[in-house]
Amino acid sequence: MIRNTIKRFMTYTFKPSKQTSSFGPSVWLEFSPLAIKYDSVNLGQGFPNFEPPKFVKDAMIKTIEVGGFNQYTRSPGHLRLVKALSSVYSPYFDRELNPMTEIMVGVGASESLFAAISSIVNKGDEVILIEPFFDIYIGPILMAGGIPKFVTLKEDSESINGAPRSSKNWKINKEELAAAFSDKTKLIIINNPHNPVGKVYSKEELQEIADVVVKHGPNTTVISDEVYEWMTFDGVKHHRFATLPGMWDRTITIGSAGKTFSITGWKVGWCIGPANIIGAIANTHQYIPFSVPTPTQEAVAIALEQPNIKEYFVELATMYQKKRDTLLNTLTQAGLDPVIPEGTYFIMGDTSSIKLQGDQGKDTSITGMGLHLRDWNIARYLTTEYGVTTIPPSAFYCDDHQKIPENFVRFTFCKDDVTLQRAHSNLLKLKK
Amino acid sequence: MIRNTIKRFMTYTFKPSKQTSSFGPSVWLEFSPLAIKYDSVNLGQGFPNFEPPKFVKDAMIKTIEVGGFNQYTRSPGHLRLVKALSSVYSPYFDRELNPMTEIMVGVGASESLFAAISSIVNKGDEVILIEPFFDIYIGPILMAGGIPKFVTLKEDSESINGAPRSSKNWKINKEELAAAFSDKTKLIIINNPHNPVGKVYSKEELQEIADVVVKHGPNTTVISDEVYEWMTFDGVKHHRFATLPGMWDRTITIGSAGKTFSITGWKVGWCIGPANIIGAIANTHQYIPFSVPTPTQEAVAIALEQPNIKEYFVELATMYQKKRDTLLNTLTQAGLDPVIPEGTYFIMGDTSSIKLQGDQGKDTSITGMGLHLRDWNIARYLTTEYGVTTIPPSAFYCDDHQKIPENFVRFTFCKDDVTLQRAHSNLLKLKK
Repeated sequence: MIRNTIKRFMTYTFKPSKQTSSFGPSVWLEFSPLAIKYDSVNLGQGFPNFEPPKFVKDAMIKTIEVGGFNQYTRSPGHLRLVKALSSVYSPYFDRELNPMTEIMVGVGASESLFAAISSIVNKGDEVILIEPFFDIYIGPILMAGGIPKFVTLKEDSESINGAPRSSKNWKINKEELAAAFSDKTKLIIINNPHNPVGKVYSKEELQEIADVVVKHGPNTTVISDEVYEWMTFDGVKHHRFATLPGMWDRTITIGSAGKTFSITGWKVGWCIGPANIIGAIANTHQYIPFSVPTPTQEAVAIALEQPNIKEYFVELATMYQKKRDTLLNTLTQAGLDPVIPEGTYFIMGDTSSIKLQGDQGKDTSITGMGLHLRDWNIARYLTTEYGVTTIPPSAFYCDDHQKIPENFVRFTFCKDDVTLQRAHSNLLKLKK
Repeated sequence: MIRNTIKRFMTYTFKPSKQTSSFGPSVWLEFSPLAIKYDSVNLGQGFPNFEPPKFVKDAMIKTIEVGGFNQYTRSPGHLRLVKALSSVYSPYFDRELNPMTEIMVGVGASESLFAAISSIVNKGDEVILIEPFFDIYIGPILMAGGIPKFVTLKEDSESINGAPRSSKNWKINKEELAAAFSDKTKLIIINNPHNPVGKVYSKEELQEIADVVVKHGPNTTVISDEVYEWMTFDGVKHHRFATLPGMWDRTITIGSAGKTFSITGWKVGWCIGPANIIGAIANTHQYIPFSVPTPTQEAVAIALEQPNIKEYFVELATMYQKKRDTLLNTLTQAGLDPVIPEGTYFIMGDTSSIKLQGDQGKDTSITGMGLHLRDWNIARYLTTEYGVTTIPPSAFYCDDHQKIPENFVRFTFCKDDVTLQRAHSNLLKLKK
């Protein structure tokens, strides 16, 4: 016995750090393999399954052929890219953005967010998230020792009766938002246009948030994740939180080439904000990837320098609006009463009409995750029985609120028309 | 007065997080602009100024042309790349590496290290670094709340008299190493081959370290940063810490396509280790960049699949040995008594023969950094007066040990022959 104890003591045992030990496999680990296993049409993860525009691919090929862009570049962002970003974005921010001090390029929106959150949040600080929230926000908050607080977007029940449902009826309650603030609140993260609801905040809604921030969180920094900025529909205008009166000084805006140019795998994103905050984020970013890959930055710069770039943004929205309408039509016909998104490339579909029997949606699980949650079981059931894969939105809610979205699944329409047509055929079997 | 106080209270003030607030501009911010300003030959930052091999560039062009590699790939590593890494590395690790569980791809060695350190180190944990140490290690340690402890590589003084100096005479004192351990030691980071000294640890030296770790830090994890693994000279063999008896279970080995294929700007690196540790690192990595750019991973996989890849590694070492010998000859002729490196693409040059007068090396500073340090002043002086830019190695020492390397500067020879020839001409003016 004593021998065993000594031996056990001397044997190396790896213990992950406390701040990361809760991290486990994510929702994708269930649904991506499940989609492959059942040859299901994958409307789960939000990446285009079509090629990027030819001018974007050509920019990369030219970059490699010409040479000179294969080594480290400037840590806070490749010179040509930060200049191109300044040119493109300055008019939208109503100010001349300094490319050297007010813009930082990160490894996608992901690492941009990671560097930003790490540079802001201390142990014990509170961070307000609007629920449903993009699940990747949680990692850097927990790693910094921050405490997430949740304010839930709620669908206005009066709007549901009869009329088509719209993301604009999903609203933040101003009193709830105010109540979420405390003297420990260091940061609030807004996602606009909003994944997964598709909401595009009106200027008035953003001003309400700004008013609450100023009143209840005078030293609260704001991250406005605007990666779906160019994807708004039906003439709905996207407003930038940073352009509200007084908000520039405290707001970091996150953008993404991945969403804009259908190159999610190139991992080029950026932070835009005041020099003091961007400087702090850039200092942190030095220690994370040191720099972002050079050839992808050069190619994205070339793409942004296209003289007709503003027309491209409009074309992108037009393309996605058409795909949105296709999928909306499918979901309506299939009885999955969709919430019409004003922006993003996601739709929340209402699955109330589906009744699960016995072990349906449970017995096919690969990972055993979410067996007690209706949205997970519905998502599995739709994959295995109807051949369409979606994402259960409870993945975007905190532990205490997992049941709130139980009657929804999230569909993406950033897929080619053949895929959307296959999804149409498969989902219409629900009506048989 | 009261009004002003209230107004000040209500005005937003950004405070960076405590764990990142000490981060400032790094050594590169002084010397890269200084080199440009004085049109100096830049032997400072360690990136090749020549193009990568044609087969590497062709792999990228083909990847973009063929299409299908522009979206997110598997978070812990693109399938084709982890398989290629398993094929290449398994023989060197004396085991069949599982590509799905024992390898993780990061955004360069930098983010691989960041994810690894974050996954291991808790607030208050101690981390042993061998000094001089690559400065990027510090960031993730401090962000996790870890406490770095330093053990200094020392040049055996007996070896200096007369004989050519060699990196093999820079040694760790075993007792000092043992004394650095405490019951709070969670991690030790080894860099082998070693930047900036160029040391390649012998098998016996590694075994000594392993013995100390087992005895004094039974639960200490080891990171072995081996990014210069293929660059060893004069037949010196590189041994992997993970292959020592019993060490696999506690060792993470870091590698880099940037160093191996002269593509530091592509930012593709990796961790290799036991599944439980790699799994923890991969869970953390999900929240940092989510995934590594897909096209660069595909292209690096294609490059690693070259049937003659082992010959390529040998050719790489041969090319660098020739460049090393060129620069060694220059430094010897210039009276900068070099420490002959057994590996890496760096040389420590001894500047004892240079005497600074008055404000020499101070008045040219761009940032005002390191004015009290001889190696910084010498590095500036060599840039502005002799047109060769180097790096002061005190950047790789802790605050208390900044004076230790005062008689050295670090040169890199990962430059084309024209550049090395220009450096030769410029440095020989030291003898006039």
